[in-house]
Amino acid sequence: MHADRERGPAPAELAAAAVGGDRRALARLLSAVENAPALWREIGPALAGRAGGAQTVGLTGAPGVGKSTTVSALVRAYRGAGRRVAVLAVDPSSPFTGGALLGDRVRMSEHAGDPGVFIRSLASRGRLGGLAAATAQALRVLEAAGFDVVVVETVGVGQAEIDIAALADTTCVLLAPGAGDDVQAVKAGLLEVADVLVVNKADRPGAARTIADLTAMTRMRAGGRRPAVVRVAATLGEGIDELVERIAAHRRDLAATGELDRRRLARAADEIRGLTLTALRDRLAAPPHDARLAELAHLVIAGTADPWSAAEWLLADVLTAQPVPAP
Amino acid sequence: MHADRERGPAPAELAAAAVGGDRRALARLLSAVENAPALWREIGPALAGRAGGAQTVGLTGAPGVGKSTTVSALVRAYRGAGRRVAVLAVDPSSPFTGGALLGDRVRMSEHAGDPGVFIRSLASRGRLGGLAAATAQALRVLEAAGFDVVVVETVGVGQAEIDIAALADTTCVLLAPGAGDDVQAVKAGLLEVADVLVVNKADRPGAARTIADLTAMTRMRAGGRRPAVVRVAATLGEGIDELVERIAAHRRDLAATGELDRRRLARAADEIRGLTLTALRDRLAAPPHDARLAELAHLVIAGTADPWSAAEWLLADVLTAQPVPAP
Repeated sequence: MHADRERGPAPAELAAAAVGGDRRALARLLSAVENAPALWREIGPALAGRAGGAQTVGLTGAPGVGKSTTVSALVRAYRGAGRRVAVLAVDPSSPFTGGALLGDRVRMSEHAGDPGVFIRSLASRGRLGGLAAATAQALRVLEAAGFDVVVVETVGVGQAEIDIAALADTTCVLLAPGAGDDVQAVKAGLLEVADVLVVNKADRPGAARTIADLTAMTRMRAGGRRPAVVRVAATLGEGIDELVERIAAHRRDLAATGELDRRRLARAADEIRGLTLTALRDRLAAPPHDARLAELAHLVIAGTADPWSAAEWLLADVLTAQPVPAP
Repeated sequence: MHADRERGPAPAELAAAAVGGDRRALARLLSAVENAPALWREIGPALAGRAGGAQTVGLTGAPGVGKSTTVSALVRAYRGAGRRVAVLAVDPSSPFTGGALLGDRVRMSEHAGDPGVFIRSLASRGRLGGLAAATAQALRVLEAAGFDVVVVETVGVGQAEIDIAALADTTCVLLAPGAGDDVQAVKAGLLEVADVLVVNKADRPGAARTIADLTAMTRMRAGGRRPAVVRVAATLGEGIDELVERIAAHRRDLAATGELDRRRLARAADEIRGLTLTALRDRLAAPPHDARLAELAHLVIAGTADPWSAAEWLLADVLTAQPVPAP
């Protein structure tokens, strides 16, 4: 009994409770999945058939452009329309510290007492590619829990942010006038993934120039649809209705052309591929393959084997290995 | 005959020529390996037994701190001591454009006519983890080609830069007075990977303050050895001799404690692991597994399977698949 209480409810029970609207169960389920992805085997059945219903919105941009304020204003707008909203705040730039975004979360406190809003932070564990996979899985859980909109907010302008922003149906890139943010975004390739370009702090000097520059840049974009450019002053609540409409229009457009299904299929394939690679990585970390890997590393250091051949031998070992009998 | 000439020399011949000191062959070999890592099977034997001899130095820092000038001054110092030097300039922040660092390379032009200096740029192909693997392989080729020192220069302060900097025996993090670079470096965890902290532009105002701040921070670092803090004015050539000596001292220290071998073993294991995952990824992209992956993605989208189970099934398929007979 006591041991049971310490372990808490089984994952399948947590999943059923989370799907039924229990926020505490949802928070615990997200933690459980984050810490032990293998739990999917147990919770999968409870979530199956409930995924894919939510509208997902990615929002990214350099620090200081006003992402949290904009997200908060978006949440207010969606709530005003009666929609249930979850926010995933993801910080890939903190590989060592974790626990980032706390200050930003304070700004979201206006939604703290609202049962129709759920906010969750995810920080990098330092594993390459691990955060995008963790975000995809958290998205799946939140969709299954019945949220109508899930906003994924990421901080920064690197490859990790691009990968995570690409998990959403609609990706918004946020900029502010001046400070070279626009050039920064272009450099990091963020403009290429943007479905909607948001110029925040549009009440400040230089906004018109930034909007003109961005509009000119979108005209140069080769192929595909051009991103809309939306002018927002999030602290004043200005432009938020138009932003909501532009995001909705982009998604309607995606759905009408079949692109929404194609994107979701591609994302699911990416996710399965990533988890398959993780499964192989796990096997390489366990007997007997961990010892074989160490042995091959010695051969490579000694110069009697090249790393490519060593990798081929190791994969062949895994492919032909008999399952290790349980002790 | 003509077809042969178009293909050029076989990889094994290129490797033999590169090892023999042919710079043109070396450049072509690096391109060949970068574009088709499977070539290792052919070139491995020619390079075997020649790896591991070089001293490798990583150098990273935010844009504008003077990395290229410092690398150029380091190259001059090593050349003055009669050592052959290769420079790998890596830019992970340009996933879409490539061809970066060209402007910086111009500043290295003083070494252009020196047969004891070899400079090579690597840009991201947008593949996660791909650039670190490509850098590791280029390092291996340059070591086999007999360079005494290989300097790996990366631009920026993100996770990718940290992964690449960690490929070197000694990692130098470059900062400049003011501009909040020190705070930036700490935030991204760069301080934690630094073996030597280099304060460049030490002739500028604020240098003493930056050095004091950094020295205080290194005192707070938990565990391990403290990084040396070196004061440099690369454009004036000041402090370069001390930097060379600090890098050498760090490496002597590593070798004496056995840490050099441990690091190199861990790096070789990382490299083999990465290549093994790449080999699996390649199999998932080819028949029959590509079709099976697409089928599983449909099941996940439809909600009749969870991605984790799908990944388990896919890996099981690969593990039990018979080799596809050649047509």
